Amino acid sequence: MRGVTFQGPGQIRVESVADPLISEPGDALVRVTMSAICGSDLHLYRGRMTGVEPGIVIGHEYVGVVEQVADGVRDLRPGDRVVGSFHTACGHCWFCRRGLFSQCQHGALFGFGRRFGDLPGTQAESVRVPHADFTLHKVSADIGDERAIFIGDILATAYFAVQRAEIRAGDTVGVIGCGPVGLLAVMCAQASGASRVIAVDVLDSRLAVARRLGAVTVNGRDQDPVRAIRDLTDRRGADAMIEAVGSAETLRLACQAVRGFGIVSAAGVYVEEAIPFPAGRAFARDLTVRLGMANVPAQFDAVTELIRHGRIDPAILVSHTLSLDEAADGYRLFDAGEALKVLLKP
Amino acid sequence: MRGVTFQGPGQIRVESVADPLISEPGDALVRVTMSAICGSDLHLYRGRMTGVEPGIVIGHEYVGVVEQVADGVRDLRPGDRVVGSFHTACGHCWFCRRGLFSQCQHGALFGFGRRFGDLPGTQAESVRVPHADFTLHKVSADIGDERAIFIGDILATAYFAVQRAEIRAGDTVGVIGCGPVGLLAVMCAQASGASRVIAVDVLDSRLAVARRLGAVTVNGRDQDPVRAIRDLTDRRGADAMIEAVGSAETLRLACQAVRGFGIVSAAGVYVEEAIPFPAGRAFARDLTVRLGMANVPAQFDAVTELIRHGRIDPAILVSHTLSLDEAADGYRLFDAGEALKVLLKP
Amino acid sequence: MRGVTFQGPGQIRVESVADPLISEPGDALVRVTMSAICGSDLHLYRGRMTGVEPGIVIGHEYVGVVEQVADGVRDLRPGDRVVGSFHTACGHCWFCRRGLFSQCQHGALFGFGRRFGDLPGTQAESVRVPHADFTLHKVSADIGDERAIFIGDILATAYFAVQRAEIRAGDTVGVIGCGPVGLLAVMCAQASGASRVIAVDVLDSRLAVARRLGAVTVNGRDQDPVRAIRDLTDRRGADAMIEAVGSAETLRLACQAVRGFGIVSAAGVYVEEAIPFPAGRAFARDLTVRLGMANVPAQFDAVTELIRHGRIDPAILVSHTLSLDEAADGYRLFDAGEALKVLLKP
Amino acid sequence: MRGVTFQGPGQIRVESVADPLISEPGDALVRVTMSAICGSDLHLYRGRMTGVEPGIVIGHEYVGVVEQVADGVRDLRPGDRVVGSFHTACGHCWFCRRGLFSQCQHGALFGFGRRFGDLPGTQAESVRVPHADFTLHKVSADIGDERAIFIGDILATAYFAVQRAEIRAGDTVGVIGCGPVGLLAVMCAQASGASRVIAVDVLDSRLAVARRLGAVTVNGRDQDPVRAIRDLTDRRGADAMIEAVGSAETLRLACQAVRGFGIVSAAGVYVEEAIPFPAGRAFARDLTVRLGMANVPAQFDAVTELIRHGRIDPAILVSHTLSLDEAADGYRLFDAGEALKVLLKP
Repeated sequence: MRGVTFQGPGQIRVESVADPLISEPGDALVRVTMSAICGSDLHLYRGRMTGVEPGIVIGHEYVGVVEQVADGVRDLRPGDRVVGSFHTACGHCWFCRRGLFSQCQHGALFGFGRRFGDLPGTQAESVRVPHADFTLHKVSADIGDERAIFIGDILATAYFAVQRAEIRAGDTVGVIGCGPVGLLAVMCAQASGASRVIAVDVLDSRLAVARRLGAVTVNGRDQDPVRAIRDLTDRRGADAMIEAVGSAETLRLACQAVRGFGIVSAAGVYVEEAIPFPAGRAFARDLTVRLGMANVPAQFDAVTELIRHGRIDPAILVSHTLSLDEAADGYRLFDAGEALKVLLKP
Repeated sequence: MRGVTFQGPGQIRVESVADPLISEPGDALVRVTMSAICGSDLHLYRGRMTGVEPGIVIGHEYVGVVEQVADGVRDLRPGDRVVGSFHTACGHCWFCRRGLFSQCQHGALFGFGRRFGDLPGTQAESVRVPHADFTLHKVSADIGDERAIFIGDILATAYFAVQRAEIRAGDTVGVIGCGPVGLLAVMCAQASGASRVIAVDVLDSRLAVARRLGAVTVNGRDQDPVRAIRDLTDRRGADAMIEAVGSAETLRLACQAVRGFGIVSAAGVYVEEAIPFPAGRAFARDLTVRLGMANVPAQFDAVTELIRHGRIDPAILVSHTLSLDEAADGYRLFDAGEALKVLLKP
Repeated sequence: MRGVTFQGPGQIRVESVADPLISEPGDALVRVTMSAICGSDLHLYRGRMTGVEPGIVIGHEYVGVVEQVADGVRDLRPGDRVVGSFHTACGHCWFCRRGLFSQCQHGALFGFGRRFGDLPGTQAESVRVPHADFTLHKVSADIGDERAIFIGDILATAYFAVQRAEIRAGDTVGVIGCGPVGLLAVMCAQASGASRVIAVDVLDSRLAVARRLGAVTVNGRDQDPVRAIRDLTDRRGADAMIEAVGSAETLRLACQAVRGFGIVSAAGVYVEEAIPFPAGRAFARDLTVRLGMANVPAQFDAVTELIRHGRIDPAILVSHTLSLDEAADGYRLFDAGEALKVLLKP
Repeated sequence: MRGVTFQGPGQIRVESVADPLISEPGDALVRVTMSAICGSDLHLYRGRMTGVEPGIVIGHEYVGVVEQVADGVRDLRPGDRVVGSFHTACGHCWFCRRGLFSQCQHGALFGFGRRFGDLPGTQAESVRVPHADFTLHKVSADIGDERAIFIGDILATAYFAVQRAEIRAGDTVGVIGCGPVGLLAVMCAQASGASRVIAVDVLDSRLAVARRLGAVTVNGRDQDPVRAIRDLTDRRGADAMIEAVGSAETLRLACQAVRGFGIVSAAGVYVEEAIPFPAGRAFARDLTVRLGMANVPAQFDAVTELIRHGRIDPAILVSHTLSLDEAADGYRLFDAGEALKVLLKP
């Protein structure tokens, strides 16, 4: 089959690769009808993740149709249309029994090489999915591929971060970073009760999208976001802050901009062993800070319902729909900031 | 001054009554700019509350301007525009210190006579407000009287019941009863994350309003609401049910229509010593059932923010704006089901 | 094999019955090393449950050793020592994925006949356990059978009810009913942070056990329990009440004795379609009321840890250890109130 | 009167200072019957807090008797025995209305100079207490000074951190640091449901106290605490970790030793603008991290109940009871690690 392979930083090539095969009980084989390029794929592309084996198929966002199931699969049949979580979950371990699937003791990531479980990626024509009963989610035809594709990663990521911000109807919520995850966090915060969302970025084009969604926007190049947020909240700070960048600086801003006893919930990816953290501020203001990788299978239903009933439309983020063979162009455009969300059709 | 007095069941008269005076430390005197007739005033009007002294001024929903404050008032000054809670709260007792103001150990209700603390009502030109710092809420001019009036009782009541339903973004929420409180509960459920609200009533005119708000509607005369709700939720039942009538029958329906481990939260008023309760169902389905009188001062800010930022517009419920002198007409219209919400201007 | 059979109200007979056999994927066959008689077995014995087929093997509390596993069992092997939940849980349905195993859409109860899933009971030499991965819990040898037997039902039931009472360290908690579940609720409330537990019953022998556990006790024959609890709590009422009887009257008492915004959590079994419920009190005091069947698999680990580290010792409740052949005596003693907990050794 | 004054790092002198006087509405004048030296007083003593004015009276832990109250005090009378919070709380601001007293917008600290509100300290014969209704807590005579003194700061601090760790009965909880706050956190964790507490320190004398309290202990000089905790928890890590030192290194250890989705709650004081933080770990493990200053008035009742009913006995920490005139000795002993808790009697 055809697959998008990583050949080294900046080097993406679509090649013929071996067809995936069912190999373990619980596996499903999924024919991919759409995949997408994620911000975390850019980490790989930009060479920030070391030790990834050249030649592997990459990608982890996908929608498709079940073609074959192994022994032990109970909830899926060939022909089922599915979206997949970017991480697998066994459904049986200590964490999965508690619904904490992202901490599955047998979990793995698609498309990031041996260090993360050695699962080939999903930017391909077909993919083998371990622990399919818990890793895949059936989606009915009323939600098209260009919406369903968001369920398995970035919408669940935004939703997860917003859930962990424990928003109460009427709250003011700040979102730092208006990339795809940040913009979805704006939508999730609104759907979760925020009476007002204050979106912060440095790119006017992204802030324009946030404004169309109904957010108050702050361009960090023009204003101090912390002061702007305090000015909008009687000097208290926002009730909760969503950090959607993944940097020490934005985490610090979020801690500065949140009110006493507020929650800072990060939707961004952190890989550093240590980053500077504003401990004095967090202490003086009784803050709660949450970082984390989305617990996707636990959000499948909620996120699907929000799309189905029109509360959230993630498709507005799609800037490019390319063929799988054009994947290298997709990476280049996304890396250059010329694309907001790139979908790939095999 | 002029005040709306209760003379007996069905007998409302606007009369000259004594002007209220500051009498205790912590009091404020408020000139009323708008009051309203509440569903619980109808309990009185219909003779369902016994032992109420004829001649008392009634009513408990109001907006106004502080005219005078007694010693010990710290947060208010003459000239402040305020909306008042239908119950008072001292701010100091065991409950108030925990933010549980509706259980204030020194609390009283306006306009229900001696049994509830002997406070004259607010359907009048002026009212004395005890414990003014905690009972009153300052409202800025951007929220007009016809919206602010809802903050002190029925919007807070709907919001309180919805908060206690612990809705998570994406949930399906049922609302039984589409009177003013039920319709506000529809709005609050949507603002709190419901991806879908299923509204139940027997009057098409009220269901039409719910539909305009975006709810799926079920007329209990045409369909079994329990079956209808189960059919819409893969036979599970709604994630949460809001009971907005205040009867044994609707509470039973709510318990039947909610899913296992779901929450039934009542916004309705219950005064009975005992009503039939579906214990077997609640046991078999691991239900949580919450009844209660709204904790208004704890919701002041959240509810105000939802109005201010346009997430909820309670004014769409206003069917009649009358002069105080026309109060008897207002009661008659509301009692006859010909009015949805009646406002009174002194 | 030998099994305890129900022949009609008051009629228990130990007979030779067919050996259970593995029949479905996911099944395990467990050789029972100890079973026990539960208060809910008495419902059957006393003829309060209608429609139960005479001749069925009854019982649902047991400890044993896995003898054989069917295809699809992933977490268990022959030789594993296990305690079983009184209800099964598939691990895959909408509820099980959320850890709400007691609402499993494919769940069944052991030993209550066709209406509850037609599973033979566990007061026998051997039992077939469906969905074994989620229904069984491995227990290490440091916890003997006479303690482990409590994990699969009544300790989990007490723990579940106490968890749902949301106790905060320092709270005063009332427990109504000092049968086995009530006494375990006393222990769980203490282990969950209650600074003081007030135990209510009408039998001095049971209250004596509660006192030995450290509870303050109230005999309902001598004192009004509601007044007694209010007197001990500055007239407010207990922060939470555990109802461990399962009657309308004790539920009413619990609602009267809890403070405003408190939680009444029932550990008792309710089967009635309707019981009288103090709605006026629940409304006026903003109560939360929870009824429900224990979610046993979700409590397996916590309850086991409490026993292992000596925080709770359920074995103090064991009054009789009989052979399986003496089961009829066990039922008689328990029914007559002459036994607190009866264990049966095959 | 006599008061303990700060003259510069390492320089403590007991001197005659001006008698405090009622000066604002809401004030109370308290005659101190016992004060104590806190770990945060050592920050001052060791010169880690800059800008503190020489000559000020220091200290913030105290028990005493109300001598006089100003206008506006509603809940206290001369003669009331009280313990005081180390921070004041107005009871009226946005935060206080929500019970978040430690974030009071008019709050101040006793004994830390102008930067923290310029309130003279409590290591003196008498102290003026602003906002007395919310800052003071009445304590009955059954709790002696040597226990009550802990209510106003370090027991509330330990309790607050443990509350924010959201312990569930049966959990394993780690505590890093076995100074007075850490040892109280051991007690609070046990009282809050921990089936097992693992206490970590490098001083055997402190670990011996933790062991007497029932904790499993780990000396960080002999073993890697992270490995030790994982070995005790099936390699998962503790369910929650309490950090009771206030350093980047112990916060890092806590993040390493907690399980996926666990909570790290810090009882330690952090004043640094930035410290290194293990973001990669927190992200990969979906952690929640909480820092903060104790919300003392919100814990008054719970902490008092735990002492009253014998669930916690803080007096076991008292190593020295000195006269106020010996305060300099007390500071020297505590600074040298030769005292665990020093009380001062005027």
